[in-house]
Amino acid sequence: MNDHGFEPNDPGWKDRVRAGFARQGALRLLGATLADLAPGRCVIALPFRDDLAQHNGYFHAGVTSTIADAAGGFAALSLFGPDNEVLSVEFKINLIAPAHGERLLAEGRVVRSGRTLTVSAIDVFVETGAARSACALMQQTLIRVASAPEPASR
Amino acid sequence: MNDHGFEPNDPGWKDRVRAGFARQGALRLLGATLADLAPGRCVIALPFRDDLAQHNGYFHAGVTSTIADAAGGFAALSLFGPDNEVLSVEFKINLIAPAHGERLLAEGRVVRSGRTLTVSAIDVFVETGAARSACALMQQTLIRVASAPEPASR
Amino acid sequence: MNDHGFEPNDPGWKDRVRAGFARQGALRLLGATLADLAPGRCVIALPFRDDLAQHNGYFHAGVTSTIADAAGGFAALSLFGPDNEVLSVEFKINLIAPAHGERLLAEGRVVRSGRTLTVSAIDVFVETGAARSACALMQQTLIRVASAPEPASR
Amino acid sequence: MNDHGFEPNDPGWKDRVRAGFARQGALRLLGATLADLAPGRCVIALPFRDDLAQHNGYFHAGVTSTIADAAGGFAALSLFGPDNEVLSVEFKINLIAPAHGERLLAEGRVVRSGRTLTVSAIDVFVETGAARSACALMQQTLIRVASAPEPASR
Repeated sequence: MNDHGFEPNDPGWKDRVRAGFARQGALRLLGATLADLAPGRCVIALPFRDDLAQHNGYFHAGVTSTIADAAGGFAALSLFGPDNEVLSVEFKINLIAPAHGERLLAEGRVVRSGRTLTVSAIDVFVETGAARSACALMQQTLIRVASAPEPASR
Repeated sequence: MNDHGFEPNDPGWKDRVRAGFARQGALRLLGATLADLAPGRCVIALPFRDDLAQHNGYFHAGVTSTIADAAGGFAALSLFGPDNEVLSVEFKINLIAPAHGERLLAEGRVVRSGRTLTVSAIDVFVETGAARSACALMQQTLIRVASAPEPASR
Repeated sequence: MNDHGFEPNDPGWKDRVRAGFARQGALRLLGATLADLAPGRCVIALPFRDDLAQHNGYFHAGVTSTIADAAGGFAALSLFGPDNEVLSVEFKINLIAPAHGERLLAEGRVVRSGRTLTVSAIDVFVETGAARSACALMQQTLIRVASAPEPASR
Repeated sequence: MNDHGFEPNDPGWKDRVRAGFARQGALRLLGATLADLAPGRCVIALPFRDDLAQHNGYFHAGVTSTIADAAGGFAALSLFGPDNEVLSVEFKINLIAPAHGERLLAEGRVVRSGRTLTVSAIDVFVETGAARSACALMQQTLIRVASAPEPASR
């Protein structure tokens, strides 16, 4: 048991999560990186660029929700065995302050790990220098599915 | 009154929405385009690319939510006057089927247009050739704010 | 196939839904009734009483969400076989106008009926005499579970 | 500043919240009580009764959401001045475990207190004897409105 109360079910969980992250074209496009990993917990970082912005020059709500969704999903995946993958069923995000700063950090934590469904809670922060403030809050439902074969190139 | 029951408050609404769309770096990055516009209604299209995918080769849930959020937001903006802008307060999306296809279409419709808050409902479809199927459903709350000056370059 | 596109899987679906409704103490407490039923669709009605109100004398948001949740759940249940029951996984409701009137009507429709998960959309209206207006909008996820034995008295 | 970081704006906040609670017919109907109050925080308790149940004998999801919505709303109201009231704009609840036990406890905490909008997060627990477990999680948006005059009897 770690400090979040979760035990991984697969000794190779960390490599598996890193490999899963690497296969997500959309996260690469944004420039997101895995900043921290623990069983049931995942932190994703994203430096600001103009092409991640909405009209006021803040991170776009869709970009914020993309890394929040990913942080919650990989937090869930970290507790699965090697034969399972994770899909988002639904999520809800409150954008509580303008995401205006040098980088975003999305911290996903599993709050309920069931046989079929996992629920994650995700906090998103915006940082400028050493200053950090909360900018979004997500609640997310995920489903465990059997691993699919590698997709063919398309 | 148009067939959606909404009357624009600003004769220049269409140009204003198009200009707002053009200022969103994140939508340009994805390759999204404005496919249709009416008062209280906005359709956004997005062709598939590998760098918009998750691990199975489907559109990433975050990408789906980004264009859905934008479609609902521009549907709201279409009913505002020239001195107002729109910000997303929160949204909730159900990913009801894998977003597997040649392009996404997000259709946002205003369902409640208030003085302060607007509520939009957004349907997202995935298309391959002539076949279209629903892949996501969003319910979104937006707030009307005073227009900000153009952001300085950053 | 009916006009909602759903075919029931159980010839006894209507009696099963009615029996399920009758077993819900919370709906009896509120005074809710089954107003209409079709495969994949359920309408619940609720007359106003002072003890269903919040501080302004409108239907309480919790009461509105209770009958909306029930309408979506029974819409889902109508498509199941006799060995399955339904549980709400999560829902999100927008309260788009004060629920001020003589009665509430919640209309639940299945929008995605999967093996494990069902997604329903629910519209809630408030009526006074012949006037009807929309007051809430819900998006809901439900899970199919094996029927439990009758609960013992507690 | 208290341990939740919120300072009340009205010395009479506690009486005002208690009076607001007392005016909610729907909470009286359920048998809910105010269990704890602090600036930006409200705990509501609800003992089990058969007429609060769904078909398995657990607390009905609508009942759970009613007290969660109220706990988040009164947490918000505790930070307002005497001329303002609170209305729920929307909420989303995940029912993470069967609400099976002797009583429910909903703990609402303000996570963002703005001029117009407040965001609350609500945890719901079910207790049996000394055992407590989480059963639901809510994220809620509220709006500050001018106080209405007492509703006339209807």
